Amino acid sequence: MEISHPYLLFLGDVPDALAAKTGLGIVDWRKEWCVGQFRLDGCKADAKLPDMTPSEAAGKGARTMVVGAVNAGGVLPDHWVESIVAALEAGMDVASGLHMRLGDVPAIRDTAVRTGRRLFDVRHSSERFATGKGTKRSGKRLLTVGTDCSVGKKYAALALEKGMKDQGFDADFRATGQTGVFISGRGVALDAVVADFISGAAEWISPEADDAHWDVIEGQGSLYHPSFAGVTLGLLHGSQPDAFVVCHEPTRKTMRGVATPLASIQEVIDLTIRCGQLTNPTIRCVGIAINTAALDEDEAKTLLEKTSADHGLPATDPVRFGVEAIVERIGKEFGNP
Amino acid sequence: MEISHPYLLFLGDVPDALAAKTGLGIVDWRKEWCVGQFRLDGCKADAKLPDMTPSEAAGKGARTMVVGAVNAGGVLPDHWVESIVAALEAGMDVASGLHMRLGDVPAIRDTAVRTGRRLFDVRHSSERFATGKGTKRSGKRLLTVGTDCSVGKKYAALALEKGMKDQGFDADFRATGQTGVFISGRGVALDAVVADFISGAAEWISPEADDAHWDVIEGQGSLYHPSFAGVTLGLLHGSQPDAFVVCHEPTRKTMRGVATPLASIQEVIDLTIRCGQLTNPTIRCVGIAINTAALDEDEAKTLLEKTSADHGLPATDPVRFGVEAIVERIGKEFGNP
Repeated sequence: MEISHPYLLFLGDVPDALAAKTGLGIVDWRKEWCVGQFRLDGCKADAKLPDMTPSEAAGKGARTMVVGAVNAGGVLPDHWVESIVAALEAGMDVASGLHMRLGDVPAIRDTAVRTGRRLFDVRHSSERFATGKGTKRSGKRLLTVGTDCSVGKKYAALALEKGMKDQGFDADFRATGQTGVFISGRGVALDAVVADFISGAAEWISPEADDAHWDVIEGQGSLYHPSFAGVTLGLLHGSQPDAFVVCHEPTRKTMRGVATPLASIQEVIDLTIRCGQLTNPTIRCVGIAINTAALDEDEAKTLLEKTSADHGLPATDPVRFGVEAIVERIGKEFGNP
Repeated sequence: MEISHPYLLFLGDVPDALAAKTGLGIVDWRKEWCVGQFRLDGCKADAKLPDMTPSEAAGKGARTMVVGAVNAGGVLPDHWVESIVAALEAGMDVASGLHMRLGDVPAIRDTAVRTGRRLFDVRHSSERFATGKGTKRSGKRLLTVGTDCSVGKKYAALALEKGMKDQGFDADFRATGQTGVFISGRGVALDAVVADFISGAAEWISPEADDAHWDVIEGQGSLYHPSFAGVTLGLLHGSQPDAFVVCHEPTRKTMRGVATPLASIQEVIDLTIRCGQLTNPTIRCVGIAINTAALDEDEAKTLLEKTSADHGLPATDPVRFGVEAIVERIGKEFGNP
C-alpha cells in the first residue's frame, strides 16, 4: 500500500494525547507532510497544526485524511463516521490504524465507492505475501531489536535513517507497524499478517536494492517477549539484517503486559545473532539505544558509558544525545558513503 | 471449534493419494470416526472405506462431511460445490481445510443458512484469541519439534498420545494443523492465526489441567526454517512444554521449499531449550523420532542406536519401531501413572 500525502490528521474527540499517539508520531517525523488537524468538540489532543475541516484541507492540497487517534477497543465511534464521509466527499482518501475496517461501515464504504476514493486499513494488509524464502538479497539492512516491546525501536530506526542520510548514506526507513506505515507512506503492520507469512512479509518490506543502499527496518516485540517473540523471529529471518541495534528501557523490570522478567541486553545480542545467522551469517550488533527519559542527565551519561564499555559498542539515547556514534560505527564496519 | 463425528470423507476427483492426504491421515488415526468415503468419477485416491453418497452416510449417522482433499492452489473447484450442498441438504455439517472459505461460495452459504448446518474452515479460525501471557499453567505438556517441516511431528505426537494412553497416562493429542484438527475434532490451524496471537492461540490449545494430565502437542515448522520459525517460536512459548521430542528426516539436506541447509538434531535441542526456558525453565528433551523410511532395517537400527548414544536420549522411528522407549523415558523423568 502506498498512502498519498500530504495528510490531514483526524484526532476525533479523544480524551488525552496518548489516544492520539499515531497522529502525534506522524507530526514528529513528517511534519512537512501534514497540512492540518481536524478535531471534534472536546478533543484533548493537539498536534500543534492548524485546525481545519476536510474541505479546507483538500483546498490546501491534502490527499489523505489519516485517522490518527484511537478510542478504547480500537473500534470506530459512530460519531466519527460523518467526519470520514466528509473527507471522502472532499476528494481525499482515508487511512486508519483502527482494528475495525473502515469498509465495514456501510456509509463509509458506499461513499468511497461512489467517490472513487481509497480506504486504507493499515492493520489489515490486503497485500498477498509469499512465504519467506531465506535467500540473500542485495543491499544492506539494519534492524532495530529490543529487550521488550515499546522501548523505542521505531524511534531509533527513524533517528538512524535521518542520521545516516545526514552523513550521506543512501538509507530508507522501512515500516513494520501502523504508525511507521503512516510515517513512510508504505509498509506492513506485521502483527496483522497471517502467521505463515511473517518472514515472507518481512522479505517484501525490504526488497533487493543497490549494494550501498541501507534499509533501516523498524523492529517489533522482542525474542524474549512471550506474547510476540514469533513476530520478532519472523521479522529477523525475513529482514536478514547485516547490522542490528538493541533498544532498551533501563527502569523496566518485567516485559510489557506480562510477568516475565526483562532479558538483558547481552542476552538479546546473543540470541539475535544466533537466530539471525540463519539468513545472514555475518549479522552483527552495531549499537545500543537506551531510553533514559527516567534518568537525570548525569545518570544517563554514566549508564551509557558503562553500557558502552561493557559491550564494546556505541551506546546512546537517540532522543537525548543523537545517533552519531552508531552511524560512525556503521561507517567503520561497512564503509562510509 | 468442535467438529462433530462420525465423518463422511469427501475425496472429490483428485488425481493421486497425495492430494487426499488430509482424508487419509484421518483414517490412519480415527478410522472409527469414519463411516465412509464419497468420491466423484475419476478419483484416484482411496481411503479404503465404503463408498457412499451424503444421504447414505447421513442414514448411517455421519454428522460432518470433511473435505479431505485439495486440488492445486487450495481453491474449491466449481464441480465440488454440488456435493457440498448435497451434504448440507442431507443434514450434515461440512468441514474443510481449503484456503478458500466454504461460506464464500454463495450456493454453499445459502444452503447452510437455510438448513441450519455449520461450516468449518479449519484454516480460518473464527476463535478470538488473546495475546500470550507466558504464565505457568497446571498440567504437563509435551511438544514435538523438528529439524524441518514435514518430518513427522504430527505422527509422532499421535503415536505418543496412543503409547502414553497404553501405559495408563492421562494424555490428549492437541492439534495445531488442519489434519490434526480433523483427527481430534478440535484445535487450531496455527499457521492461519494472525501473527500477534500465535502464542495466545497456543496457550488456548493446551489450557490448565490436572497435574498428572499430559497434553501432547503437535509441533509446526522448525526454529531453523526461514519461512516458518516465527510460528514455531510462538508455539513453543505458548505451549510451555515440560518435555519435547525432536523429529528428523535423515536424508534431507536442505529445509523443505528453501535452500537453507538442514539444522542438526543437537542445534534444535539447544535452541529449543534456550528459547523454551522463557516460559518453562525446566524444559527438557525426552527423545528423538527419526523417519527411517528411506533406510533398510539394518541401516535404520544402526542410525537409531548411534543417535541415541550421541545424545543420551531414546531414539526411535515411531512408525517402524513404536514409541515405547520415549514413553518409558517420560515415566522415568516425570513419574509413571
